[in-house]
Amino acid sequence: MKIAELSRVSGVPVPTIKYYLRENLLPPGELTSPNQASYSETHLRRLRLIRALVDLAQVPVARVKEVLEGLDSDTMTLHDKIGRAHRAITPQRQLTSTSDAREAATTQVEELLRSRGWSVDPDAPALNTLIETIAALRTLQQDHLVSFLDSYATAVEKFTDLEVSAVTSSPAAPTPDQIAESVIIGTILGETLIASLRLLSQESISAKRWNPSTD
Amino acid sequence: MKIAELSRVSGVPVPTIKYYLRENLLPPGELTSPNQASYSETHLRRLRLIRALVDLAQVPVARVKEVLEGLDSDTMTLHDKIGRAHRAITPQRQLTSTSDAREAATTQVEELLRSRGWSVDPDAPALNTLIETIAALRTLQQDHLVSFLDSYATAVEKFTDLEVSAVTSSPAAPTPDQIAESVIIGTILGETLIASLRLLSQESISAKRWNPSTD
Repeated sequence: MKIAELSRVSGVPVPTIKYYLRENLLPPGELTSPNQASYSETHLRRLRLIRALVDLAQVPVARVKEVLEGLDSDTMTLHDKIGRAHRAITPQRQLTSTSDAREAATTQVEELLRSRGWSVDPDAPALNTLIETIAALRTLQQDHLVSFLDSYATAVEKFTDLEVSAVTSSPAAPTPDQIAESVIIGTILGETLIASLRLLSQESISAKRWNPSTD
Repeated sequence: MKIAELSRVSGVPVPTIKYYLRENLLPPGELTSPNQASYSETHLRRLRLIRALVDLAQVPVARVKEVLEGLDSDTMTLHDKIGRAHRAITPQRQLTSTSDAREAATTQVEELLRSRGWSVDPDAPALNTLIETIAALRTLQQDHLVSFLDSYATAVEKFTDLEVSAVTSSPAAPTPDQIAESVIIGTILGETLIASLRLLSQESISAKRWNPSTD
């Protein structure tokens, strides 16, 4: 299909498609004349993936590019591809806590990882975020939330189990490329899914408990 | 304390504190001379809350202002204050899905809400995000993830239960202001906590399953 049709089917404006082509997020089409290229279903699929990452998961374009390079790589392990997806949704946080609060939080997180048997890279951005978040909760005197950390981790492991079964129990034997794509999409859009479900569940409880105007 | 000491204790640079004062995120200090103001523990606490929301939860400054106005309001219900916190962490998403995919996703979400007994505002931004995310997962042929929606919702309800007990089971009877602050901080930083725990749990499983270079 021509670029105009790709735009029509995907709902993405032509200038945006051209921007993705210039930034190498989208591979070039097949030239059918010096000024015209033809795009395939593969382009349409890739374009939809880009839009989901940019619009729904709010991943910056530069990070989307890293994720897609990972997906297309024949040499990276799936673990490394997942690492790129993690970086895409973990903004680099500045250190905000005092050194005392940070030290206590670090000890608590190390104990959690040990008791759960989670082995993670000491440089994982999510590790820094977790430590800083716990330190902030303590500094803000919200220790009761921190005391539930282990229960949170138990609930979180449910998601991970679900995601692993989703990928490995797929009825049609998936190719490694399909597994990689599923895992990456699940990692990134799964976060959006969980966050929005959580807010809806909270809103429903809050309406019942704390909104005297409705019943 | 003077602004220089507030900066030293909080770790926030003086120009940033002045910016928060100008934007009315931080209430003015008490004037001790025409050019000098004095700041209290309340200012320090508020400043730490602002930093946690901006740096850790990546909430835009304009949204932080709305959240704090909610916290300080004597007339808003807790439910409305929570609504502001929800908007702060739910970016307004553009519609990206086709109308067919959106229609199917809407039906699925309506069924979920009904079966769970969740009553939510039809204009809740999280509702739109959930529908768009499901539509995107379907369009990207990741239906297996969508099929776990109900199990996701069950795991999510665990968080909400934990959060409600955290607030209501606090040993010292909290004032309404303290409850509001706890709920708002829990809503916003809880998302950061869950997201980072999830990534660490995933990384650990991924290292075991999909990284041949380690054992």
